[in-house]
Amino acid sequence: MRISELSSRSGVPVATIKFYLREHVLHDGVRTAATQAQYDETHLARLSLIRALVGVGGLSIARVHQILHTIEHPPESMHELLGLATAPGAAAAHDADDDHDRVHALMREWGWRVSEKDCSTHASLARALQALDDAEFVLPDGALRMYQQHMEQIATAELATVPTGSPEATVRFVVLGTVLPESLLLVLRRMAQQEASARRFDGG
Amino acid sequence: MRISELSSRSGVPVATIKFYLREHVLHDGVRTAATQAQYDETHLARLSLIRALVGVGGLSIARVHQILHTIEHPPESMHELLGLATAPGAAAAHDADDDHDRVHALMREWGWRVSEKDCSTHASLARALQALDDAEFVLPDGALRMYQQHMEQIATAELATVPTGSPEATVRFVVLGTVLPESLLLVLRRMAQQEASARRFDGG
Repeated sequence: MRISELSSRSGVPVATIKFYLREHVLHDGVRTAATQAQYDETHLARLSLIRALVGVGGLSIARVHQILHTIEHPPESMHELLGLATAPGAAAAHDADDDHDRVHALMREWGWRVSEKDCSTHASLARALQALDDAEFVLPDGALRMYQQHMEQIATAELATVPTGSPEATVRFVVLGTVLPESLLLVLRRMAQQEASARRFDGG
Repeated sequence: MRISELSSRSGVPVATIKFYLREHVLHDGVRTAATQAQYDETHLARLSLIRALVGVGGLSIARVHQILHTIEHPPESMHELLGLATAPGAAAAHDADDDHDRVHALMREWGWRVSEKDCSTHASLARALQALDDAEFVLPDGALRMYQQHMEQIATAELATVPTGSPEATVRFVVLGTVLPESLLLVLRRMAQQEASARRFDGG
């Protein structure tokens, strides 16, 4: 199909498709003339994946590029592969100011192993905790532990369902299964808060 | 203090402070000359709150404006107040295309009341589910229910600790307690995934 049909079938504007082609997150079509190319179902599938990652996933094009590269060139070890797939984007890179000691102390308290490889995630946790401090927001006693325990149970359940048949299926599942449910989890929490509020304060 | 001192003590650039003043998220100082004003500790406290909401909270200035307005003019009913505080921003406004029937059916299955007031949250859930469909990502059996149950337990624990002494304290706690832990929860999930992966695949 031509780019105009690819646009109408995917719902992605032609200008955006051209941007994705330039950024190499969408593979080139088969050139049929100097200014024309043919696209197929693989382009449609890829566009729907990009839209999901950029839209609800809220990822940058650079991060989408990295994720698609991981799907196409999966590493050998399963743990390394999962690590790449769950790594935060460049925006969350290591910052010398982050308070890793605090994070490492928490991890030991929770019985989690402290791996220097995972420092970019540690930096994200340090920053999330710092943001609470900056806003002078003190978590109620036990709240952090309560959050950690629920997230540990969620992650354990998630890991148990990772397909291990082919690297591509694993990475696709882990990358999407990490990113896509994030919005879902946050909106479920807000809805659950509304429900709990109605129960407690609205005579429910 | 002058604006230059406010800037150095808060770590917020003068140009950004001026932007916050123009956007009315930071209250004016006391004017001492045509081009000079004095600021005090209330400005410092407000700047630290704005930084937390804009930074890790990732909120737009319009949303910060709305939240600060809610803190200053709290509604009368506690449930309404909690509703305002947890409402998503304008970006998540109601969209006629969203599949509310699917959301309402899920809510009934979970034993949650369906209130038309909360439709903007329903739209967010509809979109989060649609994004999974768009990416052709199928949640494993029972995953949605598992997420919902954990979020319900988290929300119930959170609601139990809301201070109800003054409207301002309540709104401040609910607004910040809704927004600020979002990053925390997501990073804890990613760390928990790394931990679970190490346990399962890395000989842990």
